[in-house]
Amino acid sequence: MDFNKLVEQLSKLDYKNLYHNDFFLTWDKSLEELNAIWTVADAIRQLREENKSAKIFDSGLGISIFRDNSTRTRFSFASACNLLGLEIADLDEQKSQIAHGETLMETANMLSFMADVIGIRDDKFIGKGHTYQKEFADSVQEGFEDGVLKQRPTVLSLQCDIDHPTQMMADTLHFAHYFGGFDKLKGKKIAMSWAYSPSYGKPLSVPQGGVGLWTRLGMDVVLAHPEGYEIMDDVNEIAKKNAKESGGSYKVTNDMKEAFKDADIVIPKSWAPYAFMERRTDLYGQGDWDGIDKLEKELLAENANHKDWECTEEMMKLTRNGKALYGHPLPADITGVSCKEGEVAASVFDRYRKELYQEASFKPYIIAAMIFLMKVKDPEAKLNELYTNSTPRLNG
Amino acid sequence: MDFNKLVEQLSKLDYKNLYHNDFFLTWDKSLEELNAIWTVADAIRQLREENKSAKIFDSGLGISIFRDNSTRTRFSFASACNLLGLEIADLDEQKSQIAHGETLMETANMLSFMADVIGIRDDKFIGKGHTYQKEFADSVQEGFEDGVLKQRPTVLSLQCDIDHPTQMMADTLHFAHYFGGFDKLKGKKIAMSWAYSPSYGKPLSVPQGGVGLWTRLGMDVVLAHPEGYEIMDDVNEIAKKNAKESGGSYKVTNDMKEAFKDADIVIPKSWAPYAFMERRTDLYGQGDWDGIDKLEKELLAENANHKDWECTEEMMKLTRNGKALYGHPLPADITGVSCKEGEVAASVFDRYRKELYQEASFKPYIIAAMIFLMKVKDPEAKLNELYTNSTPRLNG
Amino acid sequence: MDFNKLVEQLSKLDYKNLYHNDFFLTWDKSLEELNAIWTVADAIRQLREENKSAKIFDSGLGISIFRDNSTRTRFSFASACNLLGLEIADLDEQKSQIAHGETLMETANMLSFMADVIGIRDDKFIGKGHTYQKEFADSVQEGFEDGVLKQRPTVLSLQCDIDHPTQMMADTLHFAHYFGGFDKLKGKKIAMSWAYSPSYGKPLSVPQGGVGLWTRLGMDVVLAHPEGYEIMDDVNEIAKKNAKESGGSYKVTNDMKEAFKDADIVIPKSWAPYAFMERRTDLYGQGDWDGIDKLEKELLAENANHKDWECTEEMMKLTRNGKALYGHPLPADITGVSCKEGEVAASVFDRYRKELYQEASFKPYIIAAMIFLMKVKDPEAKLNELYTNSTPRLNG
Repeated sequence: MDFNKLVEQLSKLDYKNLYHNDFFLTWDKSLEELNAIWTVADAIRQLREENKSAKIFDSGLGISIFRDNSTRTRFSFASACNLLGLEIADLDEQKSQIAHGETLMETANMLSFMADVIGIRDDKFIGKGHTYQKEFADSVQEGFEDGVLKQRPTVLSLQCDIDHPTQMMADTLHFAHYFGGFDKLKGKKIAMSWAYSPSYGKPLSVPQGGVGLWTRLGMDVVLAHPEGYEIMDDVNEIAKKNAKESGGSYKVTNDMKEAFKDADIVIPKSWAPYAFMERRTDLYGQGDWDGIDKLEKELLAENANHKDWECTEEMMKLTRNGKALYGHPLPADITGVSCKEGEVAASVFDRYRKELYQEASFKPYIIAAMIFLMKVKDPEAKLNELYTNSTPRLNG
Repeated sequence: MDFNKLVEQLSKLDYKNLYHNDFFLTWDKSLEELNAIWTVADAIRQLREENKSAKIFDSGLGISIFRDNSTRTRFSFASACNLLGLEIADLDEQKSQIAHGETLMETANMLSFMADVIGIRDDKFIGKGHTYQKEFADSVQEGFEDGVLKQRPTVLSLQCDIDHPTQMMADTLHFAHYFGGFDKLKGKKIAMSWAYSPSYGKPLSVPQGGVGLWTRLGMDVVLAHPEGYEIMDDVNEIAKKNAKESGGSYKVTNDMKEAFKDADIVIPKSWAPYAFMERRTDLYGQGDWDGIDKLEKELLAENANHKDWECTEEMMKLTRNGKALYGHPLPADITGVSCKEGEVAASVFDRYRKELYQEASFKPYIIAAMIFLMKVKDPEAKLNELYTNSTPRLNG
Repeated sequence: MDFNKLVEQLSKLDYKNLYHNDFFLTWDKSLEELNAIWTVADAIRQLREENKSAKIFDSGLGISIFRDNSTRTRFSFASACNLLGLEIADLDEQKSQIAHGETLMETANMLSFMADVIGIRDDKFIGKGHTYQKEFADSVQEGFEDGVLKQRPTVLSLQCDIDHPTQMMADTLHFAHYFGGFDKLKGKKIAMSWAYSPSYGKPLSVPQGGVGLWTRLGMDVVLAHPEGYEIMDDVNEIAKKNAKESGGSYKVTNDMKEAFKDADIVIPKSWAPYAFMERRTDLYGQGDWDGIDKLEKELLAENANHKDWECTEEMMKLTRNGKALYGHPLPADITGVSCKEGEVAASVFDRYRKELYQEASFKPYIIAAMIFLMKVKDPEAKLNELYTNSTPRLNG
């Protein structure tokens, strides 16, 4: 799209509450705010692809805290920070003194004297991740109000136990580009389906984040999973309410085929049942490692009853004209490639490889857009300035 | 303070020997040099708080070597380097070939071809840390003289077995701000007191660094600890000499109450006895892990005899008007919070939380000031230029 | 050399194929291309030494993947990237999701959305490292052609199982400076000799990279090793062919003395026999840890039969006028210093310490030159611009 049109589009949105704010859950934000993020993501992408600098920081730190492994999100956060002029500093909790009984309040303030952004991934334990992120944000807020911090860093969720906002925002921007605009997503059927994986305990943040976001766009959202693999009640309620307001629909089924039937987009992906994750959090809290072991075996046995939940060529044929867009946050468990039996048939995955990589390519821009809108006072003027005055990114 | 006044204050000090020098121990430096660092720290802080860039490097590396865990100092060093335009590169000795019998001379030179600053923390073993830092500096000096290194990196101690200079300089700048200036510290009573902690073998660099620095400011310095928890003789002698020259005083006592009586500032903190740390270094050198284990148990048992060395509300009442400033390099062992019985009562810690965090906030600026004064030929002109020409740090 | 002369020298070379290319093996490149890299390395070094900025990137990432430990190469890559304006991001495979069955194709693309350069060290397993690097490059090429990557990152080998190009290019530039120019290397005798080390399984990339490169410069190259320590056949054939074309010579001998006799340069260094490394790769593939253990003991026993392969003072006396230049990629196994019996006598090593460090100092500039030539469209104009317009690197 023409750069000026993007800025014009932005100018029509009310997004002023993003300034000096945080990002935890997509449903904390208004749809106009989400649209502003998508628009700025496209604009920053265009700056970069036209070799124009998007640097707004002369110096500053973007601090990442990964309480779980990460490749994609780690490099997306690094790319976004670097593009805007922030240096990345990763907090390795193992090399810190955090184990020594330091409070979160203290850690949060100690990291933040010169931090502009703090990105946190904490997705392993139900009831913990989002809470940790919010407490972190409250801590820096208190430090800011006390005058300890002269500037308050923006806190971004890079995935929690409830939502995976940078992922879902990126995936959705990809869908919009694929179908020709956000207005084209209205009325499209999207199937967020459980799928079998030989691994255990995958986070719920993707299915939850998905249904919590797509129901706001007037889409027909179907969540499919075997009995017992329910997501959080709260998110189910949010999705229902969203669908009502947006004119879309939200349905939960235990039948993968029903979900795939005439779907425009399918996202088959493994996750652990919410109830199971809750028990695991409790056992972990009690330090009951034997109990966790037993629970894991139990879940793997249960999972094995549902190996037929696979995105095969047959399943794809059920979708609209047999040509639904296949999506996945990656890495996927591909049958015969990364595991014996998995979420998706190799031929399906291969056919959509290019789209899957493009889907992933939006994440750095989503993160950059969030930071941009939270740090820049007049984003429209700034974008115009970056586009027009145009320092080359690679001056060679 | 007015920025111009800071520069004027700087212009009256003789600090030319800092240029192209290192920083290991505060008592290696003249008081005017320390004053120059404090003044520049305030100036750089003002630049940052007024959103003015303090960047003096277009490219360059600040290399950190942490031979012990660190959060605060790690991020302070990162923040300081980033603020001045240096990228941080951390030497992870585990991922290097250093274990393979490489000499320090070689490591030091190999790291330094493009390094502007090397920050080293090495505080675990008595008789080792400072020696390592000096040998590192001698090695790069030799490389520089040989023409191997075209520029000699500045070596900064980020804590050794003897002193913790960036910490003590930051803490003291906080005290000066709190009481309204360095001249106001003259005659103030400061109690550096041992306090009980359930952990073992904490470094001596804070009490030693404290008494070695505060005795130069005309303060009445009292070091208190149980019998057997003596600090290094050499540092005791330095403190005595300093006090004589500055018109302050220096006293060692085995009575915590005596130290707290009418004190203006109290710093209750655990440390291991010097003699113990010496034995530990020997055992470590012999690879006698059983011996170290035994020694540790011995010390913990000895520590447990001194649980009454705690900064309680009762102890605080003894201080000047019951309102001494409580200080700590953090993280503190807080009774009932981070441990069952610790250095300080939770209510005391909580009352001073804001001040404690402010105390910590000076460290990045102290480090930045050290680098600035060691790298910039005409610091007064440069500060004026940065303030007046004023590139915004966040241009948004 | 005069900066303008370097640019003039560059202008006479045909190096256009380096633009938007990768670097894996020196023999993939024409001699003019290698000369261009050496020339630009000297030019960038001069920029830096005259405190002129060499920054060509306003933002961007240089990603390193070290599948083996590294100090020198890690910091050389970091220094080179930083000097040109790229931020370093290290992929720590342990903290990534790569273990979870992700394909190389996927990893390569996921890292590369905003990467300008990817540097890879993978030298441990014969038949693996170079293959991995090529597959990585093919993957990003495919991503680029698919439009997934809007820019294709340059892939640089930071050592593989076959060659160690940044090391050998740096070493050779050092030799040229030492002897007064590349034309002076013509006809010089260089001995790449095996030497005893108490450690096991050192990579073959240095001897192989050496003979593959020096034979192109008209040098008389002698490779010496005990029977059984043969290098790869393919590289032997390349070296023979090179020598024929360049008017130099290439000889393999089992006699260290023959190699040292009248040599102008000697590089005594341990490596593991190719056949042994092949067996090890197989055992590793089978997960046969006992077999690897047994193989290791076998090799150490065999190594111990060749303790007389040491670069002693007596050996040095055999060289041209007893004054050959001693070289080593470092760290060396020094007898009585880093081990009981090693590759080189301490007195020999010490006498050449300054030269050895200078040898190492070229590596950051070689890497910077490779990146520069692969990213800059008109390198001659750009160098002139950097030299003339001259932003200071340290503006202080």
